[in-house]
Amino acid sequence: MALPLRRRLPVLPLLLLAAGGLRAAERSGGSSSAMEELATEKEAEESHRQDSVSLLTFILLLTLTILTIWLFKHRRVRFLHETGLAMIYGLIVGVILRYGTPSTSGHDKPFSCSQEDRPFTTLLVNVSGKFFEYTLKGEISPGKIHNVEQNDMLRKVTFDPEVFFNILLPPIIFHAGYSLKKRHFFRNLGSILAYAFLGTAVSCFIIGNLMYGVVKLMKLVGQLSDKFYYTDCLLFGAIISATDPVTVLAIFNELHADVDLYALLFGESVLNDAVAIVLSSSIVAYQPTGENTHAFDAAAFFKSVGVFLGIFSGSFMMGAVTGVVTALVTKFTKLHCFPLLETALFFLMSWSTFLLAEACGFTGVVAVLFCGITQAHYTYNNLSVESRSRTKQLFEVLHFLAENFIFSYMGLALFTFQKHIFSPVFIIGAFIAIFLGRAAHIYPLSFLLNLGRRHKISWNFQHMMMFSGLRGAMAFALAIRDTATYSHQMMFSTTLLIVFFTVWIVGGGTTPMLSWLNIRICVDSYKSALDGPDSERRNRTKQESAWLFRLWYSFDHNYLKPILTHSGPPLTTTLPSWCGLLARCLTSPQVYDNQEQLREEDSDFILNDGDLTVTYGDTTITANGSSGPHTATTSLDGRRTKSRSEEALECDLGAADHEVTSRGTRLVFPLEDNA
Amino acid sequence: MALPLRRRLPVLPLLLLAAGGLRAAERSGGSSSAMEELATEKEAEESHRQDSVSLLTFILLLTLTILTIWLFKHRRVRFLHETGLAMIYGLIVGVILRYGTPSTSGHDKPFSCSQEDRPFTTLLVNVSGKFFEYTLKGEISPGKIHNVEQNDMLRKVTFDPEVFFNILLPPIIFHAGYSLKKRHFFRNLGSILAYAFLGTAVSCFIIGNLMYGVVKLMKLVGQLSDKFYYTDCLLFGAIISATDPVTVLAIFNELHADVDLYALLFGESVLNDAVAIVLSSSIVAYQPTGENTHAFDAAAFFKSVGVFLGIFSGSFMMGAVTGVVTALVTKFTKLHCFPLLETALFFLMSWSTFLLAEACGFTGVVAVLFCGITQAHYTYNNLSVESRSRTKQLFEVLHFLAENFIFSYMGLALFTFQKHIFSPVFIIGAFIAIFLGRAAHIYPLSFLLNLGRRHKISWNFQHMMMFSGLRGAMAFALAIRDTATYSHQMMFSTTLLIVFFTVWIVGGGTTPMLSWLNIRICVDSYKSALDGPDSERRNRTKQESAWLFRLWYSFDHNYLKPILTHSGPPLTTTLPSWCGLLARCLTSPQVYDNQEQLREEDSDFILNDGDLTVTYGDTTITANGSSGPHTATTSLDGRRTKSRSEEALECDLGAADHEVTSRGTRLVFPLEDNA
Repeated sequence: MALPLRRRLPVLPLLLLAAGGLRAAERSGGSSSAMEELATEKEAEESHRQDSVSLLTFILLLTLTILTIWLFKHRRVRFLHETGLAMIYGLIVGVILRYGTPSTSGHDKPFSCSQEDRPFTTLLVNVSGKFFEYTLKGEISPGKIHNVEQNDMLRKVTFDPEVFFNILLPPIIFHAGYSLKKRHFFRNLGSILAYAFLGTAVSCFIIGNLMYGVVKLMKLVGQLSDKFYYTDCLLFGAIISATDPVTVLAIFNELHADVDLYALLFGESVLNDAVAIVLSSSIVAYQPTGENTHAFDAAAFFKSVGVFLGIFSGSFMMGAVTGVVTALVTKFTKLHCFPLLETALFFLMSWSTFLLAEACGFTGVVAVLFCGITQAHYTYNNLSVESRSRTKQLFEVLHFLAENFIFSYMGLALFTFQKHIFSPVFIIGAFIAIFLGRAAHIYPLSFLLNLGRRHKISWNFQHMMMFSGLRGAMAFALAIRDTATYSHQMMFSTTLLIVFFTVWIVGGGTTPMLSWLNIRICVDSYKSALDGPDSERRNRTKQESAWLFRLWYSFDHNYLKPILTHSGPPLTTTLPSWCGLLARCLTSPQVYDNQEQLREEDSDFILNDGDLTVTYGDTTITANGSSGPHTATTSLDGRRTKSRSEEALECDLGAADHEVTSRGTRLVFPLEDNA
Repeated sequence: MALPLRRRLPVLPLLLLAAGGLRAAERSGGSSSAMEELATEKEAEESHRQDSVSLLTFILLLTLTILTIWLFKHRRVRFLHETGLAMIYGLIVGVILRYGTPSTSGHDKPFSCSQEDRPFTTLLVNVSGKFFEYTLKGEISPGKIHNVEQNDMLRKVTFDPEVFFNILLPPIIFHAGYSLKKRHFFRNLGSILAYAFLGTAVSCFIIGNLMYGVVKLMKLVGQLSDKFYYTDCLLFGAIISATDPVTVLAIFNELHADVDLYALLFGESVLNDAVAIVLSSSIVAYQPTGENTHAFDAAAFFKSVGVFLGIFSGSFMMGAVTGVVTALVTKFTKLHCFPLLETALFFLMSWSTFLLAEACGFTGVVAVLFCGITQAHYTYNNLSVESRSRTKQLFEVLHFLAENFIFSYMGLALFTFQKHIFSPVFIIGAFIAIFLGRAAHIYPLSFLLNLGRRHKISWNFQHMMMFSGLRGAMAFALAIRDTATYSHQMMFSTTLLIVFFTVWIVGGGTTPMLSWLNIRICVDSYKSALDGPDSERRNRTKQESAWLFRLWYSFDHNYLKPILTHSGPPLTTTLPSWCGLLARCLTSPQVYDNQEQLREEDSDFILNDGDLTVTYGDTTITANGSSGPHTATTSLDGRRTKSRSEEALECDLGAADHEVTSRGTRLVFPLEDNA
């Protein structure tokens, strides 16, 4: 069914890699004057030039997007997000390329000669006495041989789908992990995990089954011209369950909407990307034995579940281990005296996570996410002030460029992708299915979670979460990964339309929706913190935190933080006494200084939460990564930084919120276990 | 002679690009069970894994390098620079890969079938009824067909030579341009241009001719087994004339050695890279007509000169134009309110220079250099404080990673490159030739320049410049670009050895050499500024500046700066009155405020240079890009930043130097033309 190699057919060598090598005409001066060689060189140079032009097209697109975003921000237009804009520009250029360029290719003459065995990866061809090397690109189905001679320009602007997974998604996902608002994330950890794991699984299953019904219906009315299996439907369910509320979150940030809702939405979307990737891999790995290869098979099903658990936990481990190694290296060397070295090391270690996971057969993108979270939680504290802002800014820029690139590519793909299959029934069915699929996990899960939560997820929040189920880069990347068969092509086209619709319509409707649902805008935890008496609030926060979080928190605070960073209580007090030597070696000298300080302020510590940020040298964490001299530059989310200056007048409380609420949270377990 | 396409044979797809597309096994679950397809997928997955492993090797190398650099800096070891270290680690890994891995390749079975015409770029092959597409990789000389079956691991760690030109060199060169210490650069502009253009040409010609003598000698004693033309010798001269005193400059920075010498060396090395690239292109383009294709031909010679001028000026224009466009965009939009957008735009525009130049047939690397200089001179002033540090840091990190990558790759290439030809006679001849070639331009040119310079280039400086003629990344990248023929392979091996020798020996000898030549360490312009009376110094600076500089300065100050940035005098005062409207549109409103300020301080302006930094809003330029709130983070050269904290005690005057001397320079033309 799938001919994965064929997917590689249209390749634009990003960064001019492959084609760069062909740029030869200038340097071949003294060579023998064989005419065919010169002709090949001319072609090669021409190809290099075309590559440059097509990359320039994308750069122009992004530049235009940036300038228009600026104009929109300047004029405070909020109905269209930068990603939506990138798609529109992509669409326009796509139309121009599709209908404005000549459609025949000059120099790709296919040539046939028969081989008997399976295809070789390398081929030597004898051309009038000279030998030329060829490499295998992929299989062409016999009926489409002439498609090889497609529009040259369209071919140039078509990327290898793996570019998304290997180059563009990693910085986006890493940045998501690295900029996770840890405090609110961990406070809502239980709910986020429930939404991400259970929710995505439920959504995938429901969408898969509904789509199977749609496909059956299409078969009945004769709208289906090729095979469409149940596993394909489930794969579609997995692909389209990856939510990406980038638009909504940007608006939340700008309007300083409720932080808990933000944490729930952001945490869910980040983790469910990982779940969706691994889920789709597992569904693909579902290969029942025997004759009926697309019926249910218990053995294959459990194998798939095993694959899911294996890939997920393996990638998680990879990411966590690299993060921990980086934390240890930055803790025990004085690399922080040389911010450039530190930043370079940080970048290389984070990149190596991806490669390590891929080399071990896990999923690099998932590993990168957990690496990002670990780096933010531990390594970040060991970095120098300069490196903190450097790493933040570096990944912020990479994330921005990659994200806008993907969205403008999506716009382009609507017209330049050659194998679209738009089926109205399937598309309408898909829209209904994703609506029902999201409703079917948000409301029941929220109900169940509310049984255990003290701080309930209100109806308005549930509606907002329901509404924010946008699809974006991840769904697109998963869908374009395999467009070899009829069913996959139809899924890809539908996914593209769903992304367009949700980003434009839902993204544009966020601001009205927020006010319609009465979700607090610009009313942040600072105010709510002032609402009740201090003791009552502290109590509430305490009970609110689930046992899972409490367990994790004390382990993290007592052992991991002191081992991996310069903060936390000295290990000599938290570890049993027989580990004395080890504890002394691992504990950072700075901790003892903090400890002295702590004893003096001990009474204050319990009664007055004002000074908590100073104790234990934990400042950075407490202030949630956005404190320090560079408040503007290092704040956790780039969009916040941008909007801060603009919105400063609208929302004066914005800046204060960070610090005050963080104190509130940190009060939960003030040294309960050690003393 | 040259078969340029063959060069592309061993390709490691950087960033897993090409190979990434082959990673398919996981997703091919529901496919038909054809065995050969599964086998191909297994191979593809295996290939992807190997790519990951080989990239991991490089990351490990760089990580090791970073940690060792830290150790060296920490212990103040100065005899070995980070680039030298990267080469050593590369060498070690190269030895392991060469002698520690099995040398046969499993699955690259060459296959021959005859074609009659010239080779096609795409080939369709029929394998038992299925069609597979193949693409042309390059020509193989008949004798070396079996070389295709080389060690798989060695092949994986061998990059396409164009990777250096298209990915690794651009950030290095851009950073060089962007971090040029403008004040000292422009003060010594005439000398730098003379060294870069005349010097490189003289060096290239002398080395070329000497090497031709060596080659004749080798032919006489029978040491030469294949053709070696005069043009090859000249090409070698051009390649090896690209100096790269990265090691020396790092030490200069750390020791705060003489700034003028620094400017001369840095300026020369930056510009002579550009000259060497274009020179080698021109030599390759030298194709005499008629029978004796390697004899002198006046027409071909002048064509080569034309090519040189064309490519150079074209690339220069491209770089300058993109820089100017970026300056205009950043001046006339309020993009500086959104540093992320600004940084992204800056990055994209700078990258587009490269692509634009390549698309137009010019040299991207050269264009990028001039773009960097333009960006630093104009755009930098329009950027927000945050974007200034962001862009500096972004390109600093890219530069650091790319540079160390190239040097560790060089170490690796000594063992993994399969076609080394080491000829002792040629190597010894080359060492003598580069010594003589450098001596033959440094001393005579310095003598001539000293006739016109008031502030002479002393003998000690000349010796130091002679000594600092290291070869580095650019020579390597030029040499590896074409290793198709016997002569080019010999040139490549020799270049590699020259780079090793100069980086290790000369780099390690810099500190002793500096003290032996009595070049002022830690004695900077601040002190020398205090030596003589103020008026005498001002006078001297004035006379010292050549007419070229004066002309450029007043044009730049009166017209370009006011048009492109928010600084300089209002255009309404400098342009003729009939341009009134245009002048008013182009002049930034901020300039008038500065103008008001200026009038009040006008007397101070002439008599007292203390406040010059405030007038005309020109602060950033005057303080040479390293002023502002972020002194530590935005200082012009990264190494200075690093060393500053370390050396602060050793050299307290370091920081003051920047401001005081800049005032000195700026005094030269205080509104002579307008007022």
